[in-house]
Amino acid sequence: MIATPPRRRQQHRCVLGLDFGTLSGRALLVDLDTGAEVATAVHEYTDGVIEEHLPGDKNRLPPDTALQNPADYLRVLEIAIPKVLRAAKVSPEQVIGIGTDFTSCTMLPTLADGTPLCFDKRWRKNPHAWVKLWKHHAAQPEANRINELGQQRGEAFIQAYGGRYSSEWFFSKLLEIVNDAPAVYDATERFIEAGDWIVWQLCGVERRNLSAAGFKAMWVNPMQNAECKMQHEDGDALSNWSYPSPDFFKALHPKLENVVAEKLSAELFPLGSKAGGLTREMARRTGLREGTPVAVGTIDAHVAVPACGVTTPGKLVMIMGTSTCHLLIGETRREVEGVCGVIEHGVVSGAWGYEAGQAGVGDLFAWYIAQGVPASVHAEARKAGVNVYQLLEKRAATLHPGESGLLALDWWNGCRSVLMDSELTGLLIGATLATKPHEIYRALIEATAFGTRKIIEAFTQQGVPISELVGCGGLAQKNPLLMQIYADVTGRPIKVAASEQTCALGAAMHGAVAAGAYPDIHTAARKMARVREEVYQPNAKHKPIYDELYAEYTRLHDLFGRDPNSAMKVLKRLRVDCLVNAPRSTKTRNR
Amino acid sequence: MIATPPRRRQQHRCVLGLDFGTLSGRALLVDLDTGAEVATAVHEYTDGVIEEHLPGDKNRLPPDTALQNPADYLRVLEIAIPKVLRAAKVSPEQVIGIGTDFTSCTMLPTLADGTPLCFDKRWRKNPHAWVKLWKHHAAQPEANRINELGQQRGEAFIQAYGGRYSSEWFFSKLLEIVNDAPAVYDATERFIEAGDWIVWQLCGVERRNLSAAGFKAMWVNPMQNAECKMQHEDGDALSNWSYPSPDFFKALHPKLENVVAEKLSAELFPLGSKAGGLTREMARRTGLREGTPVAVGTIDAHVAVPACGVTTPGKLVMIMGTSTCHLLIGETRREVEGVCGVIEHGVVSGAWGYEAGQAGVGDLFAWYIAQGVPASVHAEARKAGVNVYQLLEKRAATLHPGESGLLALDWWNGCRSVLMDSELTGLLIGATLATKPHEIYRALIEATAFGTRKIIEAFTQQGVPISELVGCGGLAQKNPLLMQIYADVTGRPIKVAASEQTCALGAAMHGAVAAGAYPDIHTAARKMARVREEVYQPNAKHKPIYDELYAEYTRLHDLFGRDPNSAMKVLKRLRVDCLVNAPRSTKTRNR
Repeated sequence: MIATPPRRRQQHRCVLGLDFGTLSGRALLVDLDTGAEVATAVHEYTDGVIEEHLPGDKNRLPPDTALQNPADYLRVLEIAIPKVLRAAKVSPEQVIGIGTDFTSCTMLPTLADGTPLCFDKRWRKNPHAWVKLWKHHAAQPEANRINELGQQRGEAFIQAYGGRYSSEWFFSKLLEIVNDAPAVYDATERFIEAGDWIVWQLCGVERRNLSAAGFKAMWVNPMQNAECKMQHEDGDALSNWSYPSPDFFKALHPKLENVVAEKLSAELFPLGSKAGGLTREMARRTGLREGTPVAVGTIDAHVAVPACGVTTPGKLVMIMGTSTCHLLIGETRREVEGVCGVIEHGVVSGAWGYEAGQAGVGDLFAWYIAQGVPASVHAEARKAGVNVYQLLEKRAATLHPGESGLLALDWWNGCRSVLMDSELTGLLIGATLATKPHEIYRALIEATAFGTRKIIEAFTQQGVPISELVGCGGLAQKNPLLMQIYADVTGRPIKVAASEQTCALGAAMHGAVAAGAYPDIHTAARKMARVREEVYQPNAKHKPIYDELYAEYTRLHDLFGRDPNSAMKVLKRLRVDCLVNAPRSTKTRNR
Repeated sequence: MIATPPRRRQQHRCVLGLDFGTLSGRALLVDLDTGAEVATAVHEYTDGVIEEHLPGDKNRLPPDTALQNPADYLRVLEIAIPKVLRAAKVSPEQVIGIGTDFTSCTMLPTLADGTPLCFDKRWRKNPHAWVKLWKHHAAQPEANRINELGQQRGEAFIQAYGGRYSSEWFFSKLLEIVNDAPAVYDATERFIEAGDWIVWQLCGVERRNLSAAGFKAMWVNPMQNAECKMQHEDGDALSNWSYPSPDFFKALHPKLENVVAEKLSAELFPLGSKAGGLTREMARRTGLREGTPVAVGTIDAHVAVPACGVTTPGKLVMIMGTSTCHLLIGETRREVEGVCGVIEHGVVSGAWGYEAGQAGVGDLFAWYIAQGVPASVHAEARKAGVNVYQLLEKRAATLHPGESGLLALDWWNGCRSVLMDSELTGLLIGATLATKPHEIYRALIEATAFGTRKIIEAFTQQGVPISELVGCGGLAQKNPLLMQIYADVTGRPIKVAASEQTCALGAAMHGAVAAGAYPDIHTAARKMARVREEVYQPNAKHKPIYDELYAEYTRLHDLFGRDPNSAMKVLKRLRVDCLVNAPRSTKTRNR
């Protein structure tokens, strides 16, 4: 898909997609008319994920910390953009718009002019002055308090987020700062999503997107009942939406009473809006043209939806990587158990956006390869000239559903939906002395497929229809056995996105809309998005067996996941007790 | 423990123990007075376990077949005995008695003179003419029929065997022959335990032991109530014991009506009895003295009990290898759930012998090493100059109980006690992306310890006390972490036998009693058996955590093991359906 002769491209107009991931940022130049990917450039973050020590500091950070350095994001602009322009041999004039996507909720404290607090040497040694990455997990006590208070007060966000506000989200992290570093809170003039901050850096104005606010920052519609039809009068539909009241924030922490008015921004912009034009300074640093339109920020997984060609209800988009993110567009709002968010205009403008997810998918397989696949299989793979995944996949493909006698619960990294419980753990049942690694590998794949089916049924049982699945991301691209099993287990055909960088492509599409090249994301998707011709069709012969296995998965799911005193919960408690009561350094040993 | 200068030994009297295992036979010469092991010689069976093809035959044997060639047993006599005599440099006159032990129930059809049917070329190609090894598992339908009929008729053996007669036992195998090879049945003049057959070969007379008959062949006391006190009047106590009636056997199969009178022997001899003296022919072939007293046969695991110095109630002997066999002497007879047998005089004369077991222990760890330990751990072990077991043990020993958050059910090879269900399978719960192999290894060890505790509690809850554990076999000798965990989980001290070949030692002790060197096995055990000085004492700090983990083990045990519709049972059924309905060769593949 990468550049055919540059000469032909010179006539074409392009859009730039900037994708800010967990470990690196990517710049992708896309042909505006065809969606063809002209060139790409990646820049790895120098400081990566900061988990143990702040850069240049020796103090050990607390457990569950995951920070980033905003300077890394700026370097993506300065390094990857010039690089992709050179690679594509397009002139700055040909780039008619810029879109970005970012991990979320990744947030930071800044001054009124957008300068990150951690750029100031007074705050540089305070971890709370840095970017808190989406997977920063230290704010669980704060999330617990938010949920307790939210439920007591019947706050609208509780309902919008399927019953539970996550420790990963905006106000959990903000409350952690107030609690643990009140001086940082006081010195902060703006708390902002990194996705909005990068747009601010590009065009010099603070224009926040409503999607991140809706999905992560309690910006919801309290008037909304559970079955409200989408109102299509643009703008008007947003008038009821708001953050929680100062009363709520005051009850959470006295300092927070006016946090929205003082340190956030109640003005929010729909996806595809133009945030502004590229500043002169940023044009100089990137090699792009001053004034190039820049779209408001987006959430990485969300922009994959139009990049898979999906802008209408009934198609579940699965972004399948280390974890899987499920996104769905709905005509109506329904409450769906454990679905992380149901936000109007949240995924594409003019529709309800639902987000769900599985916390460990590719990560689970990687764990198994690293921790559970014996030396003999590695040796056989080397001998056959394939990698271990390929060998296991080949062997697992020879098995019939049910043949291994194995069944797993896919909770090695907790359960993000439907149970929304990060304390849940993995389970494997049915092993015998004859059990082989490729059987376990298949059982783990099947477990993640059952987990996806559970999410699908949570939607369909509440009247949100799903007729088709569309996969993108590494697993969808590289693991056909997995995709076939997902089709068989869910009983639905699965398409796969043609692009291998759907997030960056989706960002570019938003840039195209912001530049006015297309009237809306629906049109942009029709022009620029493609899926592969090959479709995974469910195998009717496998259906009855997978239905039986899924019934057992459901029994185990409810047994271990819903009972607060299940063996899984007791084991977790014993483990925590053990780690708290007997820190490793002082423990007596067994022998 | 092996021979110090032979000159000193020449003054000493010895006994010979012959241990017939699954893959080889062992001859052990033991000093009569001290129990010191003078020399040992092992002979591997040429045909080993016959599972796929009969020797010299190309026809594929049916699944679950496990046969042996009786010629292999004779070669042990002819090869290992002369070898051990040479190694020990003792004269034939110094060997004053011979004892044997054998796997059980391992049985064969012979002519009236003891010639195995498979030695006759007319029957050589019929698998039913060969020795059916203890782990021959093809007679499950026959066992089911026996249980059904036994329960209908209220037969005494059902109660004696904890509610269930096993497919591994004598009449299941015999009924298989009647059903599948009636001509073999008709041609057979004697059906006999291999342990009794080898004694017959040594001394030329058919003298069967009551222990194998009692534990495996329905020879039980129908007058016995559940709490009968042991009657100590020798001989008299046995008058009530018998095989089931001809009516029962007739109902099982018309041909079997008089099987006991025609093809077995109702005359049975207690352990330590002299079966006869070594024949002239066998003296010639072995290099021993003609007329050397030979004890009646014994069951391998059972003779380990006196070889561990145990001849009195309250001490549970664990023979710990690929599987674990638990033997206990009791003063009274109690019904204990899922205990394989409760037989008067069965383990040592003059007491009740109880047998229980765990089907997969060392086998489970070996499975994990082969199928679940990653290449990286193998590499680290090589680098550290230890084997993988040692590395895992060292790391697992640094963990506290509960620290891994893992719990397993130890049913990789089914559950032999308390649930007596070979269809049960393994379960592992609590894994996360941070779970490491040594944590899983420890969880598997703990699971087998919980399984042992369950057996102990089955006894103690029925009023059969257990104050102490004595381990022998490879795991007891080589895995101190495992032994410590067993002590912690069961809350009982564990001693370990000093001998590494307790079965052969126990066999030799029975030879000493048969020779009249000691009046009974109690005296022989006091003189000849030793345990190590080191005792594993339970760690009081671990007790409360293991109590909590054991409570969870019990919940899972009952949930998956007692419910006939548990996920475990459904998975097994689906697996069987799959294998029956879609034989591998004709299956359509997934992709």
